[in-house]
Amino acid sequence: MHRTRIRVAADALDANETIARANRADFDRAGVAVVNLMSAPGSGKTALLERAIEAGLDSRVGVLEGDVQGSLDADRIARLHVPVTQLNTAPGFGGECHLDANMVRTALPDVPLAEIDLLVIENVGNLVCPAEFRVGEDARAMICSVAEGEDKPLKYPLMFRACELVCVNKIDLLPHVDCDLDRLLANVAAVNPDATVLTVSARTGEGIEAWRAWLDAVPRRSATRA
Amino acid sequence: MHRTRIRVAADALDANETIARANRADFDRAGVAVVNLMSAPGSGKTALLERAIEAGLDSRVGVLEGDVQGSLDADRIARLHVPVTQLNTAPGFGGECHLDANMVRTALPDVPLAEIDLLVIENVGNLVCPAEFRVGEDARAMICSVAEGEDKPLKYPLMFRACELVCVNKIDLLPHVDCDLDRLLANVAAVNPDATVLTVSARTGEGIEAWRAWLDAVPRRSATRA
Repeated sequence: MHRTRIRVAADALDANETIARANRADFDRAGVAVVNLMSAPGSGKTALLERAIEAGLDSRVGVLEGDVQGSLDADRIARLHVPVTQLNTAPGFGGECHLDANMVRTALPDVPLAEIDLLVIENVGNLVCPAEFRVGEDARAMICSVAEGEDKPLKYPLMFRACELVCVNKIDLLPHVDCDLDRLLANVAAVNPDATVLTVSARTGEGIEAWRAWLDAVPRRSATRA
Repeated sequence: MHRTRIRVAADALDANETIARANRADFDRAGVAVVNLMSAPGSGKTALLERAIEAGLDSRVGVLEGDVQGSLDADRIARLHVPVTQLNTAPGFGGECHLDANMVRTALPDVPLAEIDLLVIENVGNLVCPAEFRVGEDARAMICSVAEGEDKPLKYPLMFRACELVCVNKIDLLPHVDCDLDRLLANVAAVNPDATVLTVSARTGEGIEAWRAWLDAVPRRSATRA
Protein backbone atom coordinates (compact mmCIF):
# COMPACT_ATOMS: atom_id res chain seq x y z
CA MET A 1 0.00 0.00 0.00
CA HIS A 2 1.28 3.44 -0.87
CA ARG A 3 1.43 5.67 2.17
CA THR A 4 1.35 9.42 2.05
CA ARG A 5 2.90 11.47 4.82
CA ILE A 6 0.85 14.56 5.61
CA ARG A 7 3.07 17.54 6.26
CA VAL A 8 0.91 20.36 7.57
CA ALA A 9 3.74 22.67 8.59
CA ALA A 10 5.47 22.30 5.23
CA ASP A 11 2.21 23.04 3.42
CA ALA A 12 1.64 26.20 5.43
CA LEU A 13 5.15 27.35 4.54
CA ASP A 14 4.59 26.36 0.87
CA ALA A 15 1.47 28.55 0.72
CA ASN A 16 3.49 31.37 2.27
CA GLU A 17 6.21 30.87 -0.37
CA THR A 18 3.65 31.14 -3.19
CA ILE A 19 2.27 34.43 -1.87
CA ALA A 20 5.79 35.74 -1.17
CA ARG A 21 6.60 35.19 -4.87
CA ALA A 22 3.50 37.17 -5.84
CA ASN A 23 4.64 40.03 -3.57
CA ARG A 24 8.14 39.76 -5.08
CA ALA A 25 6.70 40.09 -8.59
CA ASP A 26 4.79 43.24 -7.57
CA PHE A 27 7.92 44.73 -6.00
CA ASP A 28 9.96 43.94 -9.15
CA ARG A 29 7.37 45.52 -11.45
CA ALA A 30 7.50 48.68 -9.33
CA GLY A 31 11.32 48.58 -9.10
CA VAL A 32 11.20 48.57 -5.31
CA ALA A 33 13.81 46.79 -3.19
CA VAL A 34 12.50 45.37 0.06
CA VAL A 35 14.13 44.79 3.46
CA ASN A 36 12.51 42.61 6.12
CA LEU A 37 13.71 44.14 9.42
CA MET A 38 13.48 41.93 12.49
CA SER A 39 14.55 41.87 16.16
CA ALA A 40 13.44 41.15 19.71
CA PRO A 41 11.10 43.72 21.27
CA GLY A 42 12.92 46.93 22.14
CA SER A 43 16.18 46.28 20.28
CA GLY A 44 15.84 49.52 18.33
CA LYS A 45 14.32 48.78 14.91
CA THR A 46 12.31 52.01 14.78
CA ALA A 47 15.09 54.12 16.32
CA LEU A 48 17.62 52.85 13.75
CA LEU A 49 15.17 53.54 10.92
CA GLU A 50 14.70 57.08 12.24
CA ARG A 51 18.49 57.59 12.38
CA ALA A 52 18.98 56.27 8.81
CA ILE A 53 16.24 58.58 7.48
CA GLU A 54 17.68 61.57 9.36
CA ALA A 55 21.16 60.69 8.01
CA GLY A 56 19.78 61.30 4.51
CA LEU A 57 19.01 58.07 2.68
CA ASP A 58 19.59 58.41 -1.07
CA SER A 59 16.72 56.00 -1.69
CA ARG A 60 13.13 57.16 -1.60
CA VAL A 61 12.10 55.01 1.36
CA GLY A 62 8.70 53.81 2.54
CA VAL A 63 7.96 51.85 5.69
CA LEU A 64 5.45 49.09 6.45
CA GLU A 65 5.05 48.85 10.23
CA GLY A 66 4.03 45.48 11.64
CA ASP A 67 2.75 45.55 15.21
CA VAL A 68 0.43 43.43 17.31
CA GLN A 69 -1.43 46.58 18.31
CA GLY A 70 -1.24 50.36 18.09
CA SER A 71 0.61 52.76 15.79
CA LEU A 72 3.33 54.19 18.07
CA ASP A 73 6.18 53.27 15.68
CA ALA A 74 4.30 54.37 12.57
CA ASP A 75 3.63 57.73 14.21
CA ARG A 76 7.36 58.16 14.88
CA ILE A 77 8.27 57.39 11.25
CA ALA A 78 5.46 59.60 9.86
CA ARG A 79 6.95 62.57 11.73
CA LEU A 80 9.97 62.27 9.38
CA HIS A 81 7.70 62.76 6.33
CA VAL A 82 8.22 59.23 5.03
CA PRO A 83 5.22 57.28 3.68
CA VAL A 84 4.30 54.71 6.33
CA THR A 85 1.62 52.03 6.38
CA GLN A 86 0.44 50.38 9.61
CA LEU A 87 -0.28 46.64 9.68
CA ASN A 88 -1.74 45.31 12.96
CA THR A 89 -1.80 41.58 13.62
CA ALA A 90 -4.13 41.69 16.65
CA PRO A 91 -7.48 40.92 14.93
CA GLY A 92 -6.28 37.32 14.39
CA PHE A 93 -5.50 34.60 16.88
CA GLY A 94 -4.91 36.79 19.94
CA GLY A 95 -2.33 38.72 17.94
CA GLU A 96 0.06 37.08 15.49
CA CYS A 97 3.68 37.12 16.60
CA HIS A 98 5.08 37.61 13.09
CA LEU A 99 4.27 38.93 9.63
CA ASP A 100 3.70 36.44 6.83
CA ALA A 101 3.50 36.95 3.08
CA ASN A 102 -0.29 37.14 3.06
CA MET A 103 -0.43 39.85 5.73
CA VAL A 104 2.05 41.91 3.70
CA ARG A 105 -0.01 41.24 0.55
CA THR A 106 -3.13 42.53 2.32
CA ALA A 107 -1.32 45.79 3.10
CA LEU A 108 0.21 46.34 -0.38
CA PRO A 109 -2.72 48.35 -1.83
CA ASP A 110 -1.94 50.97 0.84
CA VAL A 111 1.81 51.10 0.13
CA PRO A 112 2.73 53.79 -2.48
CA LEU A 113 5.11 51.54 -4.45
CA ALA A 114 5.28 54.00 -7.39
CA GLU A 115 6.74 56.70 -5.15
CA ILE A 116 9.54 54.72 -3.46
CA ASP A 117 12.71 52.74 -4.31
CA LEU A 118 13.09 51.01 -0.97
CA LEU A 119 10.46 49.49 1.29
CA VAL A 120 11.46 48.59 4.84
CA ILE A 121 9.08 46.14 6.48
CA GLU A 122 9.43 46.41 10.24
CA ASN A 123 8.34 43.01 11.54
CA VAL A 124 6.75 42.21 14.93
CA GLY A 125 9.35 42.15 17.72
CA ASN A 126 10.18 38.43 18.08
CA LEU A 127 13.33 36.33 17.57
CA VAL A 128 11.56 33.10 16.58
CA CYS A 129 8.69 32.99 14.08
CA PRO A 130 9.43 36.02 11.84
CA ALA A 131 12.53 34.15 10.58
CA GLU A 132 10.33 31.33 9.23
CA PHE A 133 8.17 33.44 6.90
CA ARG A 134 9.55 35.11 3.79
CA VAL A 135 7.39 38.01 2.63
CA GLY A 136 8.95 38.69 -0.78
CA GLU A 137 11.95 40.66 0.49
CA ASP A 138 15.36 41.19 -1.18
CA ALA A 139 17.25 41.16 2.07
CA ARG A 140 16.67 40.30 5.69
CA ALA A 141 18.25 42.34 8.45
CA MET A 142 18.10 41.92 12.19
CA ILE A 143 18.92 44.16 15.13
CA CYS A 144 20.43 42.69 18.26
CA SER A 145 21.01 44.88 21.31
CA VAL A 146 24.05 44.36 23.55
CA ALA A 147 21.64 44.73 26.51
CA GLU A 148 20.14 41.35 25.52
CA GLY A 149 23.40 39.53 26.25
CA GLU A 150 26.04 37.75 24.20
CA ASP A 151 24.25 34.36 24.07
CA LYS A 152 21.31 35.28 21.80
CA PRO A 153 22.82 33.93 18.51
CA LEU A 154 23.20 30.51 20.19
CA LYS A 155 19.64 30.56 21.60
CA TYR A 156 17.85 31.85 18.48
CA PRO A 157 20.12 30.55 15.69
CA LEU A 158 17.45 30.42 12.96
CA MET A 159 16.90 34.19 13.16
CA PHE A 160 20.63 34.98 13.04
CA ARG A 161 21.13 32.50 10.19
CA ALA A 162 18.21 33.86 8.15
CA CYS A 163 19.64 37.39 7.88
CA GLU A 164 22.15 38.98 5.50
CA LEU A 165 22.79 41.77 8.00
CA VAL A 166 23.17 41.59 11.77
CA CYS A 167 23.19 45.05 13.29
CA VAL A 168 24.50 45.06 16.87
CA ASN A 169 22.84 48.09 18.48
CA LYS A 170 23.20 50.05 21.75
CA ILE A 171 26.99 49.67 21.84
CA ASP A 172 27.01 52.84 23.97
CA LEU A 173 25.72 50.57 26.78
CA LEU A 174 28.74 48.22 26.66
CA PRO A 175 30.41 49.77 29.75
CA HIS A 176 27.19 49.24 31.72
CA VAL A 177 26.05 45.70 30.79
CA ASP A 178 27.50 42.20 31.22
CA CYS A 179 28.04 41.63 27.50
CA ASP A 180 31.42 40.84 25.97
CA LEU A 181 31.20 42.33 22.45
CA ASP A 182 33.96 40.07 21.08
CA ARG A 183 32.12 37.00 22.36
CA LEU A 184 28.80 38.26 20.93
CA LEU A 185 30.45 38.79 17.52
CA ALA A 186 32.06 35.33 17.72
CA ASN A 187 28.64 33.82 18.47
CA VAL A 188 27.15 35.62 15.44
CA ALA A 189 30.01 34.33 13.26
CA ALA A 190 29.54 30.80 14.63
CA VAL A 191 25.91 30.58 13.50
CA ASN A 192 26.18 32.79 10.39
CA PRO A 193 29.73 33.30 9.07
CA ASP A 194 28.38 35.00 5.89
CA ALA A 195 26.44 37.78 7.61
CA THR A 196 27.46 41.40 7.24
CA VAL A 197 27.85 42.67 10.80
CA LEU A 198 27.61 46.31 11.89
CA THR A 199 28.07 47.70 15.40
CA VAL A 200 25.96 50.79 15.94
CA SER A 201 24.34 53.07 18.49
CA ALA A 202 21.05 54.77 17.67
CA ARG A 203 21.69 56.96 20.71
CA THR A 204 25.18 58.31 19.94
CA GLY A 205 25.08 57.95 16.15
CA GLU A 206 28.09 55.64 16.03
CA GLY A 207 27.96 53.35 12.99
CA ILE A 208 24.80 54.99 11.60
CA GLU A 209 26.54 56.02 8.36
CA ALA A 210 27.41 52.36 7.60
CA TRP A 211 23.84 51.33 8.37
CA ARG A 212 22.46 54.04 6.04
CA ALA A 213 24.89 52.96 3.32
CA TRP A 214 23.85 49.31 3.69
CA LEU A 215 20.18 50.28 3.28
CA ASP A 216 20.97 52.43 0.23
CA ALA A 217 22.89 49.54 -1.36
CA VAL A 218 19.88 47.19 -1.26
CA PRO A 219 18.18 48.81 -4.31
CA ARG A 220 21.50 48.65 -6.23
CA ARG A 221 22.00 44.97 -5.41
CA SER A 222 18.37 44.34 -6.26
CA ALA A 223 18.72 46.02 -9.68
CA THR A 224 21.75 43.85 -10.51
CA ARG A 225 19.77 40.75 -9.65
CA ALA A 226 16.60 41.67 -11.63
CA MET B 1 -30.49 24.72 7.98
CA HIS B 2 -28.41 24.73 11.11
CA ARG B 3 -24.97 26.23 10.53
CA THR B 4 -21.94 25.48 12.66
CA ARG B 5 -19.09 27.95 12.89
CA ILE B 6 -15.74 26.22 12.94
CA ARG B 7 -13.39 27.90 15.40
CA VAL B 8 -9.99 26.34 14.98
CA ALA B 9 -8.10 28.80 17.17
CA ALA B 10 -10.59 28.45 20.02
CA ASP B 11 -10.42 24.66 19.79
CA ALA B 12 -6.62 24.68 19.98
CA LEU B 13 -6.83 26.84 23.10
CA ASP B 14 -9.57 24.58 24.53
CA ALA B 15 -7.32 21.52 24.14
CA ASN B 16 -4.53 23.47 25.83
CA GLU B 17 -6.87 24.37 28.69
CA THR B 18 -7.77 20.68 29.20
CA ILE B 19 -4.12 19.65 29.44
CA ALA B 20 -3.29 22.66 31.65
CA ARG B 21 -5.94 21.39 34.12
CA ALA B 22 -4.31 17.94 34.11
CA ASN B 23 -0.93 19.57 34.88
CA ARG B 24 -2.61 21.64 37.62
CA ALA B 25 -4.02 18.47 39.22
CA ASP B 26 -0.55 16.88 39.24
CA PHE B 27 0.98 20.01 40.80
CA ASP B 28 -1.77 20.10 43.47
CA ARG B 29 -1.29 16.42 44.36
CA ALA B 30 2.43 17.08 44.83
CA GLY B 31 1.79 20.34 46.72
CA VAL B 32 3.91 22.30 44.28
CA ALA B 33 3.18 25.94 43.41
CA VAL B 34 4.05 26.93 39.86
CA VAL B 35 5.17 30.22 38.31
CA ASN B 36 5.15 30.79 34.54
CA LEU B 37 8.00 33.28 33.97
CA MET B 38 7.95 35.19 30.70
CA SER B 39 9.74 38.08 28.95
CA ALA B 40 11.29 39.25 25.71
CA PRO B 41 14.68 37.70 24.83
CA GLY B 42 17.44 39.04 27.04
CA SER B 43 15.31 40.80 29.66
CA GLY B 44 16.94 38.83 32.48
CA LYS B 45 14.69 35.87 33.39
CA THR B 46 17.61 33.55 34.14
CA ALA B 47 19.69 36.23 35.86
CA LEU B 48 16.80 37.13 38.18
CA LEU B 49 16.22 33.46 38.99
CA GLU B 50 19.92 33.11 39.84
CA ARG B 51 19.74 36.16 42.11
CA ALA B 52 16.60 34.86 43.91
CA ILE B 53 18.22 31.46 44.50
CA GLU B 54 21.44 33.09 45.74
CA ALA B 55 19.38 35.35 48.04
CA GLY B 56 18.17 32.22 49.81
CA LEU B 57 14.66 31.21 48.76
CA ASP B 58 12.77 29.56 51.63
CA SER B 59 10.98 27.34 49.11
CA ARG B 60 12.61 24.25 47.70
CA VAL B 61 12.69 25.46 44.10
CA GLY B 62 12.95 23.55 40.82
CA VAL B 63 13.23 25.06 37.35
CA LEU B 64 11.85 23.96 33.99
CA GLU B 65 13.82 25.75 31.26
CA GLY B 66 12.03 26.35 27.97
CA ASP B 67 14.29 27.24 25.04
CA VAL B 68 14.14 26.89 21.29
CA GLN B 69 17.58 25.31 21.37
CA GLY B 70 20.51 24.61 23.69
CA SER B 71 20.85 24.41 27.46
CA LEU B 72 22.78 27.59 28.32
CA ASP B 73 20.22 28.78 30.88
CA ALA B 74 19.72 25.32 32.41
CA ASP B 75 23.50 25.04 32.86
CA ARG B 76 23.54 28.37 34.71
CA ILE B 77 20.75 27.26 37.07
CA ALA B 78 22.26 23.79 37.62
CA ARG B 79 25.46 25.44 38.88
CA LEU B 80 23.39 26.67 41.85
CA HIS B 81 22.50 23.06 42.80
CA VAL B 82 18.82 23.47 41.97
CA PRO B 83 17.02 20.67 40.08
CA VAL B 84 16.57 21.87 36.50
CA THR B 85 14.87 20.23 33.53
CA GLN B 86 15.52 21.36 29.94
CA LEU B 87 12.64 21.54 27.46
CA ASN B 88 13.66 22.38 23.87
CA THR B 89 11.00 23.41 21.36
CA ALA B 90 13.17 23.15 18.23
CA PRO B 91 12.21 19.61 17.08
CA GLY B 92 8.77 20.95 16.09
CA PHE B 93 7.77 23.48 13.47
CA GLY B 94 11.14 25.25 13.04
CA GLY B 95 11.16 25.88 16.79
CA GLU B 96 8.03 26.81 18.73
CA CYS B 97 8.03 30.37 20.06
CA HIS B 98 6.25 29.49 23.32
CA LEU B 99 5.55 26.71 25.78
CA ASP B 100 2.09 25.19 25.86
CA ALA B 101 0.45 22.87 28.38
CA ASN B 102 1.27 19.73 26.40
CA MET B 103 4.99 20.56 26.13
CA VAL B 104 5.09 21.08 29.90
CA ARG B 105 3.16 17.81 30.38
CA THR B 106 5.75 15.97 28.28
CA ALA B 107 8.51 17.25 30.56
CA LEU B 108 6.77 16.47 33.88
CA PRO B 109 8.12 12.91 34.29
CA ASP B 110 11.59 14.50 34.47
CA VAL B 111 10.64 17.14 37.07
CA PRO B 112 11.21 15.94 40.69
CA LEU B 113 7.87 17.24 42.03
CA ALA B 114 8.21 15.30 45.31
CA GLU B 115 11.40 17.20 46.17
CA ILE B 116 10.22 20.78 45.56
CA ASP B 117 7.58 23.28 46.76
CA LEU B 118 7.95 25.76 43.93
CA LEU B 119 8.43 25.16 40.21
CA VAL B 120 9.49 28.08 38.05
CA ILE B 121 8.84 27.50 34.36
CA GLU B 122 11.06 29.80 32.31
CA ASN B 123 9.21 30.29 29.04
CA VAL B 124 10.71 31.00 25.60
CA GLY B 125 11.75 34.66 25.25
CA ASN B 126 8.77 36.22 23.45
CA LEU B 127 6.22 38.92 24.35
CA VAL B 128 3.37 37.56 22.22
CA CYS B 129 2.40 33.86 22.16
CA PRO B 130 3.49 32.67 25.64
CA ALA B 131 0.72 34.87 27.11
CA GLU B 132 -1.91 32.88 25.20
CA PHE B 133 -1.12 29.44 26.63
CA ARG B 134 -1.72 28.54 30.27
CA VAL B 135 0.38 25.58 31.39
CA GLY B 136 -1.23 24.86 34.78
CA GLU B 137 0.54 27.62 36.71
CA ASP B 138 -0.57 29.36 39.93
CA ALA B 139 0.90 32.71 38.91
CA ARG B 140 2.30 34.38 35.84
CA ALA B 141 5.20 36.78 36.09
CA MET B 142 6.96 38.80 33.44
CA ILE B 143 10.25 40.63 33.27
CA CYS B 144 10.52 43.86 31.33
CA SER B 145 13.88 45.57 30.92
CA VAL B 146 14.16 49.37 30.91
CA ALA B 147 16.51 48.96 27.92
CA GLU B 148 13.48 47.85 25.87
CA GLY B 149 11.84 51.25 26.22
CA GLU B 150 8.78 52.62 27.99
CA ASP B 151 6.26 51.74 25.23
CA LYS B 152 6.27 47.93 25.53
CA PRO B 153 3.09 47.62 27.69
CA LEU B 154 1.17 49.51 24.99
CA LYS B 155 2.60 47.38 22.16
CA TYR B 156 2.26 43.96 23.84
CA PRO B 157 -0.74 44.54 26.13
CA LEU B 158 -1.87 40.89 26.30
CA MET B 159 1.39 39.84 27.96
CA PHE B 160 1.32 42.66 30.50
CA ARG B 161 -2.37 41.98 31.21
CA ALA B 162 -1.86 38.21 31.64
CA CYS B 163 0.61 38.55 34.52
CA GLU B 164 0.13 38.98 38.25
CA LEU B 165 3.68 40.34 38.58
CA VAL B 166 5.54 42.75 36.32
CA CYS B 167 9.20 42.93 37.27
CA VAL B 168 10.96 45.95 35.76
CA ASN B 169 14.61 44.90 35.47
CA LYS B 170 17.94 46.60 34.67
CA ILE B 171 17.00 49.79 36.53
CA ASP B 172 20.76 50.37 36.93
CA LEU B 173 20.70 51.28 33.20
CA LEU B 174 18.19 54.14 33.66
CA PRO B 175 20.86 56.89 33.51
CA HIS B 176 22.08 55.46 30.18
CA VAL B 177 18.90 54.71 28.21
CA ASP B 178 16.02 56.78 26.83
CA CYS B 179 13.40 55.30 29.14
CA ASP B 180 11.31 57.37 31.54
CA LEU B 181 10.63 54.97 34.45
CA ASP B 182 7.53 56.92 35.59
CA ARG B 183 6.07 56.70 32.10
CA LEU B 184 6.89 52.97 31.85
CA LEU B 185 5.15 52.35 35.20
CA ALA B 186 2.16 54.46 34.08
CA ASN B 187 1.94 52.37 30.89
CA VAL B 188 2.00 49.14 32.95
CA ALA B 189 -0.76 50.53 35.18
CA ALA B 190 -2.80 51.58 32.14
CA VAL B 191 -2.96 48.05 30.72
CA ASN B 192 -2.92 46.14 34.05
CA PRO B 193 -3.88 48.23 37.11
CA ASP B 194 -4.01 45.05 39.28
CA ALA B 195 -0.44 43.88 38.65
CA THR B 196 2.12 43.81 41.44
CA VAL B 197 5.06 45.83 40.10
CA LEU B 198 8.67 45.52 41.28
CA THR B 199 11.64 47.55 40.09
CA VAL B 200 14.84 45.53 40.28
CA SER B 201 18.40 45.14 39.03
CA ALA B 202 19.90 41.68 38.67
CA ARG B 203 23.25 43.43 38.30
CA THR B 204 23.32 45.61 41.45
CA GLY B 205 20.94 43.52 43.57
CA GLU B 206 18.47 46.38 44.05
CA GLY B 207 14.94 45.04 44.62
CA ILE B 208 16.06 41.38 44.67
CA GLU B 209 14.81 40.85 48.23
CA ALA B 210 11.27 41.85 47.18
CA TRP B 211 11.48 39.54 44.16
CA ARG B 212 12.64 36.64 46.34
CA ALA B 213 9.81 37.33 48.80
CA TRP B 214 7.24 37.39 45.99
CA LEU B 215 8.46 33.99 44.76
CA ASP B 216 8.38 32.54 48.29
CA ALA B 217 4.81 33.80 48.77
CA VAL B 218 3.49 31.86 45.75
CA PRO B 219 3.41 28.48 47.62
CA ARG B 220 1.65 30.17 50.58
CA ARG B 221 -0.99 31.74 48.33
CA SER B 222 -1.33 28.42 46.51
CA ALA B 223 -1.88 26.50 49.80
CA THR B 224 -4.63 28.93 50.84
CA ARG B 225 -6.39 28.39 47.53
CA ALA B 226 -6.12 24.56 47.53
